[in-house]
Amino acid sequence: MERPAYVAVDWGTSSFRLWLMGAEGGVLGERRSDEGMTTAARTGFAEVLQAHLTALAAPEGLPVIVCGMAGARQGWFEAGYIDTPAPLKTILTAAVAVPGQPRDVRILPGLAQRLADAPDVMRGEETQLLGALEGQASGEHVVCMPGTHSKWVHVADGVVTGFSTFMTGELFDVISKHSILAHAVAGAADMPADDNAFAAAIQAAYRQPALATNLIFGARAGQLLHGLTAAGAQARISGTLIGAEIAGGLAEAGSGATITLVASGRLRALYERAFDRLALTYRTIDADAAVRRGLSAAARAIWPDNERRSA
Amino acid sequence: MERPAYVAVDWGTSSFRLWLMGAEGGVLGERRSDEGMTTAARTGFAEVLQAHLTALAAPEGLPVIVCGMAGARQGWFEAGYIDTPAPLKTILTAAVAVPGQPRDVRILPGLAQRLADAPDVMRGEETQLLGALEGQASGEHVVCMPGTHSKWVHVADGVVTGFSTFMTGELFDVISKHSILAHAVAGAADMPADDNAFAAAIQAAYRQPALATNLIFGARAGQLLHGLTAAGAQARISGTLIGAEIAGGLAEAGSGATITLVASGRLRALYERAFDRLALTYRTIDADAAVRRGLSAAARAIWPDNERRSA
Repeated sequence: MERPAYVAVDWGTSSFRLWLMGAEGGVLGERRSDEGMTTAARTGFAEVLQAHLTALAAPEGLPVIVCGMAGARQGWFEAGYIDTPAPLKTILTAAVAVPGQPRDVRILPGLAQRLADAPDVMRGEETQLLGALEGQASGEHVVCMPGTHSKWVHVADGVVTGFSTFMTGELFDVISKHSILAHAVAGAADMPADDNAFAAAIQAAYRQPALATNLIFGARAGQLLHGLTAAGAQARISGTLIGAEIAGGLAEAGSGATITLVASGRLRALYERAFDRLALTYRTIDADAAVRRGLSAAARAIWPDNERRSA
Repeated sequence: MERPAYVAVDWGTSSFRLWLMGAEGGVLGERRSDEGMTTAARTGFAEVLQAHLTALAAPEGLPVIVCGMAGARQGWFEAGYIDTPAPLKTILTAAVAVPGQPRDVRILPGLAQRLADAPDVMRGEETQLLGALEGQASGEHVVCMPGTHSKWVHVADGVVTGFSTFMTGELFDVISKHSILAHAVAGAADMPADDNAFAAAIQAAYRQPALATNLIFGARAGQLLHGLTAAGAQARISGTLIGAEIAGGLAEAGSGATITLVASGRLRALYERAFDRLALTYRTIDADAAVRRGLSAAARAIWPDNERRSA
């Protein structure tokens, strides 16, 4: 049995994921919950963490490495930002220690792009990126990390040169719940099931992103005029937002770039379908594995003794 | 004193406006309230109308001409659609009578664009359009009617050849209230007060509409990184949505077209500022006056006796 060496935590706005990692890099245990920053800010970050560690019978004193919104100002303990252009490996050693904890808990910083006309921030994706590009110190990469706030990142020879956040997931959510289109999508399942409507919207929005909110309104007009189903309306909204995001994400690199897609599950399926439909070149890296690799790289950098003991 | 000839009503989703019109075209009385379709569907359309007529001491039996969402399926009485391409004047004689009323109440139809890839609908704006272009039977017009659901309409020689709805106003509303940006705009006044932020967002989104949701996220990043104010964040969101709408609205006609802006009040000021900033050519027609003129044209067509009596 592999000895537990450290705990890796991806602590987002609305989700919490924890892995008990072995000295040889194996995953000894895993916990997932919806106790993200928003919930933990009320119930207590230390308490949420301890409950999951107890559930896994994690040894006392085992160090914990954390990335994500737990390091925001309104999170557990502020971990600051590293400014772009930023060599990815600078993240590894810039973690801050959370004071007053019974064990060594470190939170990794986010990235900040301090441009007057294009300010942007990320927290958590920098660690995913670190893991996704591990072992690829050179070359140019256009990385797409879809989500509530999708990130498109440009990396050149291990340096993050710039990035852009698109509010795709959150807009899909607020439009589906709070706009007039809530009626049009009522009753649709979670996954856009109407392939044709999704593909048509992807192509229309990618070609003419200026028409995005018009295409989205078509979900309602299509329902009124030709009986568009709830699944069709949902696919149209999702496809439009994703198509416009891809057009924006590739605005600089162009449609000839090879995209590194870092995604899992439903989002992976959606974005792969979109890239296929647009005949774009991409390779996919699993987002869960990427963030775990990034956290592990940081753990090795911060606690090298842990590694040596295991060797 | 001018004799009351008919009542004109613009009955939208969230607003109700009524004018008591004289036989010589004068406005003898006006009522405004928030008893739009949504409210009236609960409290009763006939009751809302009668209360306002009573408040103005409108004579019994005075006919009423209505445009807007009162004619939707979920409104008072369904008034159907006229399909594009549609000669504007066909609206005049296509009103339906609401059955069982103590007076003659007619509701004007909407317009429907039954294209498989670009379905669209309007209700109320067709009447505004009729009034805005009154006396201009010939020529090509690109008409912008900003609002909750902005409409951009192409009219050639009196025929509506096509139109596009942009969800600008509603998206501004749901983003400001229900997304993470609610924090960024909290406390801002109603009118975007930050001219520079508004102008910068208008230009950025008009130039690169694919970046719209990225530019909007900049309201949050700007607040985190360089203390963007609530007014600045609000102006950035508003400017981005309007800039992208204008790019979409002009996609077909091009930036050389002369835009006919049909707007009043706050929206008029915002769109004029945007057009000025983008150095676009436009002329403005007051939206309130336009819808009243459109309703009056319909009243004259439906009740010619009323006119003749007044002559």
